[in-house]
Amino acid sequence: MRSFSGTSLRFHSGESSPVSFLQGCLERIEQREEEVQAFEYLKTDGAIELARESEKRWRTGKQRSAVDGMPIGIKDIIETRDMPTQCGSPYFKDYFSGRDSASVSALRDAGGIILGKTATTEFAGPFASKTRNPWNLAHTPGGSSSGSAAAVASGMLPAALGTQVIGSIIRPASYCGTYAIKPSVGAINRGGSHDNLSQSAHGVLSASLEDGWNVLREIARRVGGDPGHRAIDKHGRSLETTVPRRVGVIKTRGYDSAEPYARDFLKQLAHSLAGANVEVVWSEDDPLLTEIEKAISDAQSESLEIVGCESIWPLKAYLEQDETMLSPILRDRVIAAEKRDPNDYNKLLKRRKSARQTYSTGEGTFDAFITLSATGTAPAGLDSTGDTIFNTPASYLGVPSVNLPLFTREGLPLGLQVMGYAQSDYELVCIAEGIRGLQLST
Amino acid sequence: MRSFSGTSLRFHSGESSPVSFLQGCLERIEQREEEVQAFEYLKTDGAIELARESEKRWRTGKQRSAVDGMPIGIKDIIETRDMPTQCGSPYFKDYFSGRDSASVSALRDAGGIILGKTATTEFAGPFASKTRNPWNLAHTPGGSSSGSAAAVASGMLPAALGTQVIGSIIRPASYCGTYAIKPSVGAINRGGSHDNLSQSAHGVLSASLEDGWNVLREIARRVGGDPGHRAIDKHGRSLETTVPRRVGVIKTRGYDSAEPYARDFLKQLAHSLAGANVEVVWSEDDPLLTEIEKAISDAQSESLEIVGCESIWPLKAYLEQDETMLSPILRDRVIAAEKRDPNDYNKLLKRRKSARQTYSTGEGTFDAFITLSATGTAPAGLDSTGDTIFNTPASYLGVPSVNLPLFTREGLPLGLQVMGYAQSDYELVCIAEGIRGLQLST
Repeated sequence: MRSFSGTSLRFHSGESSPVSFLQGCLERIEQREEEVQAFEYLKTDGAIELARESEKRWRTGKQRSAVDGMPIGIKDIIETRDMPTQCGSPYFKDYFSGRDSASVSALRDAGGIILGKTATTEFAGPFASKTRNPWNLAHTPGGSSSGSAAAVASGMLPAALGTQVIGSIIRPASYCGTYAIKPSVGAINRGGSHDNLSQSAHGVLSASLEDGWNVLREIARRVGGDPGHRAIDKHGRSLETTVPRRVGVIKTRGYDSAEPYARDFLKQLAHSLAGANVEVVWSEDDPLLTEIEKAISDAQSESLEIVGCESIWPLKAYLEQDETMLSPILRDRVIAAEKRDPNDYNKLLKRRKSARQTYSTGEGTFDAFITLSATGTAPAGLDSTGDTIFNTPASYLGVPSVNLPLFTREGLPLGLQVMGYAQSDYELVCIAEGIRGLQLST
Repeated sequence: MRSFSGTSLRFHSGESSPVSFLQGCLERIEQREEEVQAFEYLKTDGAIELARESEKRWRTGKQRSAVDGMPIGIKDIIETRDMPTQCGSPYFKDYFSGRDSASVSALRDAGGIILGKTATTEFAGPFASKTRNPWNLAHTPGGSSSGSAAAVASGMLPAALGTQVIGSIIRPASYCGTYAIKPSVGAINRGGSHDNLSQSAHGVLSASLEDGWNVLREIARRVGGDPGHRAIDKHGRSLETTVPRRVGVIKTRGYDSAEPYARDFLKQLAHSLAGANVEVVWSEDDPLLTEIEKAISDAQSESLEIVGCESIWPLKAYLEQDETMLSPILRDRVIAAEKRDPNDYNKLLKRRKSARQTYSTGEGTFDAFITLSATGTAPAGLDSTGDTIFNTPASYLGVPSVNLPLFTREGLPLGLQVMGYAQSDYELVCIAEGIRGLQLST
């Protein structure tokens, strides 16, 4: 992978430059895009000019931000004024909204170079995109931020925006071996994006945690969080390294069905953490952890029901215009949601709120939680984007989570997931960076 | 005004029909639209056919809902698939989104006839639209739901959707003399509308409370509330009449600057209510009411600051493309918001949350609160849309409020505002209907 923040240290002196960084990305795209298919739209014209302007700013110490000159990809459900926003759906084929989303507007202002739109599954749902896993083209890259994960993993970009409502950032990051940050719900402004669901969040997949944090920080500084929510960080803090004192292992409902080698990775990692003087607690030994695991045991099914109810509009409106415009899987989801008893949704919200309260009681006792990012490495085949069972808890709870690409098996990566507390995103990312920095052997 | 729910009782028997109701609206539009200028876009072709189909359904008892055949206007920041959505801004001139908003999609499904887009101020902000007050063309209709208020007041429509974040439903309803319901924040799905602000709500201006309630109920049944929020009513209940036992008079910060005749109206109304065996409490006699009045004393200035912060996107993105596309008043609001200390917004949210908590302590003690809907009747002139000081508390608190057009002075109307508790919209509308039914003389 190609980290921008590491390279940018040499931009002042001229040892490196945004122009040569961009050229490196373009070369990698040239080499790999045909087989990986990470992009729905590439906008390379004008990019070199933007990089040259950025280069001048860095040389004179007037760079606009830490992401000045960074080539960035945008998941194709987020609007861009100069590229189509196609939402992975024939309904939005060649659709130009004519405006930048809040996040894209902020990134341009910070000097970022918006290089293209990355492929997504249909409306960021279960129906797979064309993208392939760069580690093995016969395997899924995961979804729905498929193109963002594949582009970063193959060194085409240092960072790309993603969104997650069920498991759409952490899972593809795990399958493709990138870093990723899925922030607290509401912490990054989703204006101008087609993911208006109550537990959806904008986040980032990146070549390093620092790259990812810088991208999110620069968005938050300029356009804040969602209306009515605290932004991920208003102080503009730089990433630091925090070694946690005490972490809880959350198995989630996925643990028993995870691959044996994946469970072994987690156990070894927990063991190594303990060896580094971090207290590691499993639910067998802790009633509070047991309570938390119980509270999130239905996170996946409940999340799917919530998303179904919240998707009736606009999906039904699209369906009525042309029913061939939705995949059977999404069409059935809309039809099932419409048949539901009207009070079910309120009950779902109530249970979710209660689970959030239970989880938050861990604050003060556990600095963070760790678990797997997926049941195993990326499955073979391109039709399914894999199992979300390890990802739904963080989205259901609305809390931040991070993927650390720490494991590898038979040439395919697998991630460790680190979960934090709502609105303590900065603290969590620093803890994840601290765990990464321990260089634990597994 | 032209109430649909009153007339529809005669649709079964054929004494009246959706076709003749629509014809009445079209005639009134023919007579008055040229001078009132309530519409940005009228779509009369196809309307008669829709009314004929509705007529058949009513005759056979198969009407789709209480609003089957109802001609409805849509504030022009809410998307419609077959009409432009121009947001009162040259930036959106002739903009077609190609899809129906959640509310419009639901109303069509319920049999409603979407007759046109009603004029709004620029992005539902302070810059006035072309619309005139139908009671006196030299006076403002209020804003920002200007066209919706004027169309209903002049009998062109029985109901039209509006939105309020500061005072944009209740004030124009007061100035134009219509009924209006401003629901709890989140209670009506805002998907596909350009009012993504944390205290904005979709509501309705209507010829009767029953018309308004029916419109909101049919939306909520089909597309619910905003993602993550309870819908206004999932039970599909019909409007009933509830005479309150005890109401508090909230003066709000506007009381001292209100016109003397307006204050007299409120006092007389309170006196009449007392005469009808409703206990009416003023803050002078009640420490809890004093606390509530204190908690909302800065609602107007705080609301403007919140809206300013939340408007940086998309307004700044539009401004950067073409700075002549924003009125000076909105441009200055964006510039001021951008200069703000990044932590101000979090402080504003915290104070708003605290005010909401204080207000909610009234539950159980007061069935509802009453106040004026405006400082007086509609001011002369079309440049200003009037003072929002009486309207901001309900939006700041996120609670439902209703306008009852009970007062008149020199040929211009003025409303009584009835405020309730968050997520008890049905209870509030029934109480407002109860107060209306008392036929109080003022």
